[in-house]
Amino acid sequence: MYGIIATWRMALEGVTRADQMLKDHADAGDAIEAAIRDVEDFEYYKSVGYGGLPNEEMQVELDAAYMDGDTFDIGCVAAIKDFANPVSIARKLSKEPVNNFLVGAGAEKYAHKMGFERKNMLTERARIHYHNRLKEVQELELKPYSGHDTVGMVCLDDNHHMVAATSTSGLFMKRAGRVGDSPISGSGFYVDSEVGGASATGLGEDLMKGCISYEIVRLMKEGLHPQQACEQAVSRLDEQLKRRRQKAGDLSLIAMNNKGEWGVATNIEGFSFAVATETEAPEVYLVKFDENRKQYIEKASEEWMDNYMRTRTAPLERK
Amino acid sequence: MYGIIATWRMALEGVTRADQMLKDHADAGDAIEAAIRDVEDFEYYKSVGYGGLPNEEMQVELDAAYMDGDTFDIGCVAAIKDFANPVSIARKLSKEPVNNFLVGAGAEKYAHKMGFERKNMLTERARIHYHNRLKEVQELELKPYSGHDTVGMVCLDDNHHMVAATSTSGLFMKRAGRVGDSPISGSGFYVDSEVGGASATGLGEDLMKGCISYEIVRLMKEGLHPQQACEQAVSRLDEQLKRRRQKAGDLSLIAMNNKGEWGVATNIEGFSFAVATETEAPEVYLVKFDENRKQYIEKASEEWMDNYMRTRTAPLERK
Repeated sequence: MYGIIATWRMALEGVTRADQMLKDHADAGDAIEAAIRDVEDFEYYKSVGYGGLPNEEMQVELDAAYMDGDTFDIGCVAAIKDFANPVSIARKLSKEPVNNFLVGAGAEKYAHKMGFERKNMLTERARIHYHNRLKEVQELELKPYSGHDTVGMVCLDDNHHMVAATSTSGLFMKRAGRVGDSPISGSGFYVDSEVGGASATGLGEDLMKGCISYEIVRLMKEGLHPQQACEQAVSRLDEQLKRRRQKAGDLSLIAMNNKGEWGVATNIEGFSFAVATETEAPEVYLVKFDENRKQYIEKASEEWMDNYMRTRTAPLERK
Repeated sequence: MYGIIATWRMALEGVTRADQMLKDHADAGDAIEAAIRDVEDFEYYKSVGYGGLPNEEMQVELDAAYMDGDTFDIGCVAAIKDFANPVSIARKLSKEPVNNFLVGAGAEKYAHKMGFERKNMLTERARIHYHNRLKEVQELELKPYSGHDTVGMVCLDDNHHMVAATSTSGLFMKRAGRVGDSPISGSGFYVDSEVGGASATGLGEDLMKGCISYEIVRLMKEGLHPQQACEQAVSRLDEQLKRRRQKAGDLSLIAMNNKGEWGVATNIEGFSFAVATETEAPEVYLVKFDENRKQYIEKASEEWMDNYMRTRTAPLERK
């Protein structure tokens, strides 16, 4: 069995590519890296890689991680500027004996020495978003922080090897140097090839209060199906946050176990994800809630898919 | 009941101060911050704050964290240079609505704006250590990385409030920008006032493979005594690392529950820690192993204590 699951509709093209590679017996590490690079490279996705939205100083600072479920090798970068593919730098770092998590200028120095591709990651479109948001904030006193669509993936190959990886530009208008959950082991991602893996998207500051990716893997190790594990972990953290601090930020989780079974859970409307396995063609699903706030999953309609890409690529004017 | 437990002998003076504050009904947050600042300020401790050993570029880069067990507020800094008290910056960050984890230049900008004390954290003694190590490495091809004596603490006040905090200069000769477990929620620290807290010291790269502080708190929540929780979590992670990667880095953990009961576990010889509670005067203990590798705890002798401070403060000459 092989399979890959990823947060958000934006992962579909990458998941489709990985699915093809896995069918051809590729290693899970190669498949997930290719899939995340696809998301990083597509300039219309404004929360990951090229075209990602900048911080409050109009700098695009990127976070990424890679974890190997066989060896527990972990590589992470945070607050790195102007490299095309943070996930590949993270993967490279995961092979180092120590110094596996590098941030800021130190991370850039490493990436430069290792020959990674330099690229100004701030697009004209991101610049327009920045100016428009600044204007909105001035006019309406809006909260500048919104949009945290990290791409997070878990992948299983037909050699029982599992990996997890993440990539994000983080909160739009974040402070310079801000790090979310995406490069944090146990919060943004966790994977154990003998059990399964999980990855998160949402408000990093709240996701790391519950070490929620680790917790989902742990629940799967206790025997829970990925769907049960995700639902239990998300509802417990959501409940704890509301009780302790009167509110919970966005929490959306995906998971896959080492049999290729998968699950998702979220506390928000409108969470989408992409999945493909040996027995399931690549597909986008939406998570919805019934009148009792019970979560259910629905295939994304053709209309929804068309509308998604149309709005993402629509012309953008500076206000 | 109140109490405080901390990694390493170096925490004794801070623990003693916190113990006095807690006796006077201080808040756990104020007590732990004061205790960690004591360690940060003492220039002869070469792994924390002022006098901490530099990275491979002879820059002292510091990591710290603060977590509130009532609200789960978390604040962290990593790879921050030339501020006197990283733990206080972390505590300040924990009160921000978002952007709670800042690294590198962004963290320095925040600390500057908030008025924190600037200080060149590289001492003459650290400079000598750096040159001597460089020379050793050249002559003997020694592994440059050793010494990772993070100070980590867990504190309970008589108002049932618990907090955890860490501070470290990280691996000696680390790469610029390297981040260890100390500012990573669930790995370097975790605390829940309804259960207890834990904190770690050792090889950050391995500690974060097991989210071990979170795991210890979780085991305490299941009903385990802090001593059992620490032993179980450390032995499981040590075993997993040896099986998956043929070796395990240093793992040393301390924990206290919300009744003031405490525990420690380690996979290395020579781990020391300091503890004080309402019913126990401040004391330093050493963890030892019997012939069956069963761990036991012994009060540090007067001779050991004298020798400790004598070697720490001994004159140091450039080789």
